[in-house]
Amino acid sequence: MGVAPAFIFDLDGTLVDSVYQHVLAWQAGLQEAGIDLSVWRIHRRVGMSGGLLSNALLREAGRDLDAGVLRRLQEVHTEVFVRSFGAVRPLPGAIALLEHLTDHGVPWAIATSGHMATAGPSLKLLGVADSAVVVTHDDVQRAKPDPDLFLEAARRLGHPVEDTMIVGDSVWDLLAARRAGGLGIGLQSGGYGRDELQAAGAYRVYDDPADLLRHLDEVGVRP
Amino acid sequence: MGVAPAFIFDLDGTLVDSVYQHVLAWQAGLQEAGIDLSVWRIHRRVGMSGGLLSNALLREAGRDLDAGVLRRLQEVHTEVFVRSFGAVRPLPGAIALLEHLTDHGVPWAIATSGHMATAGPSLKLLGVADSAVVVTHDDVQRAKPDPDLFLEAARRLGHPVEDTMIVGDSVWDLLAARRAGGLGIGLQSGGYGRDELQAAGAYRVYDDPADLLRHLDEVGVRP
Repeated sequence: MGVAPAFIFDLDGTLVDSVYQHVLAWQAGLQEAGIDLSVWRIHRRVGMSGGLLSNALLREAGRDLDAGVLRRLQEVHTEVFVRSFGAVRPLPGAIALLEHLTDHGVPWAIATSGHMATAGPSLKLLGVADSAVVVTHDDVQRAKPDPDLFLEAARRLGHPVEDTMIVGDSVWDLLAARRAGGLGIGLQSGGYGRDELQAAGAYRVYDDPADLLRHLDEVGVRP
Repeated sequence: MGVAPAFIFDLDGTLVDSVYQHVLAWQAGLQEAGIDLSVWRIHRRVGMSGGLLSNALLREAGRDLDAGVLRRLQEVHTEVFVRSFGAVRPLPGAIALLEHLTDHGVPWAIATSGHMATAGPSLKLLGVADSAVVVTHDDVQRAKPDPDLFLEAARRLGHPVEDTMIVGDSVWDLLAARRAGGLGIGLQSGGYGRDELQAAGAYRVYDDPADLLRHLDEVGVRP
């Protein structure tokens, strides 16, 4: 008999509708560095570690890595993102989903590749309690697609990661979920296509948190 | 023996990197109207006629249609889009592709669901000559996914639409291409996934204009 599941959620694109603001904030940083990279290519990188993302974007643009450029890129990203945060909303069903899990005694955590500087406003928007398990890039050395964020979240929940549903909107979430040994669930609310999520190993794909909430019985939560 | 092809190009997401700015401009209009709709759902509608898009978004949000709300939504979209246009760039290879076709005597046109108010700055960015065939929503009653824009573009080129390659980044381009009787080619540069474009009937899918330029021999242009 299996263990009842716990849930680990990605934040941007999974619980809050902030991916497109992140994408344009990275574009602003790249343009300041004199790098014109297509926005869809930036979109396909969002959700991974900011350091890896910067490296990958500069490599795609054919530029050498430079510590000063990388640091400035991340600074501009944070500044522009925080400035555009006024348009960011919780995704439909996000708050209800977390409440439902809490009410039914299902353990859950949030694990994001972002730092607390950008994750903080989103956590506040969701009304996440200070007592909730939240793991950010400040807590681990390597963010997604490395498994460290999810392993640390499972450890803090005291739950075996093999019995944990890991919910995310990007292929980096799903790749990290597989490396962590959890079961990946994809949400389309970050703007990735269904096939991209399935190809990265999603066990199931739903539209958004509201759609997942309506189908919790498919992923191990009994009514 | 077939006729040598002509090309009809969509504009936003196909030749210029403006889709994400359009998406957030629509979000701004919707938020002003008190409608919080997930950004990825807006993204999936961009490229269709602004009127249809507004109707579809309001319907998804469960709101009734109101002529004043619709008009204001389109006004705010135009204002915010034009304001954010400073970050918009030609997509990689777009200018080179149009030049290559011109140099090789291959007829081409641009056909966009947008009005000249938003399309004008993009055409200027691309350096499109006044003599080029450009069809906008100002020229036809029904924009994509109706076939009218592409039929009008083919008519102005004096080229049979059945021998025309219709290049776009959204499913609306590809659906309109099929209704027009042309051959749809998908580009991923608008942020749609490859499978979404193939499922809508794309004959081939390329990354962006630069990738299409490298593979023109696959779509009927002999060296």
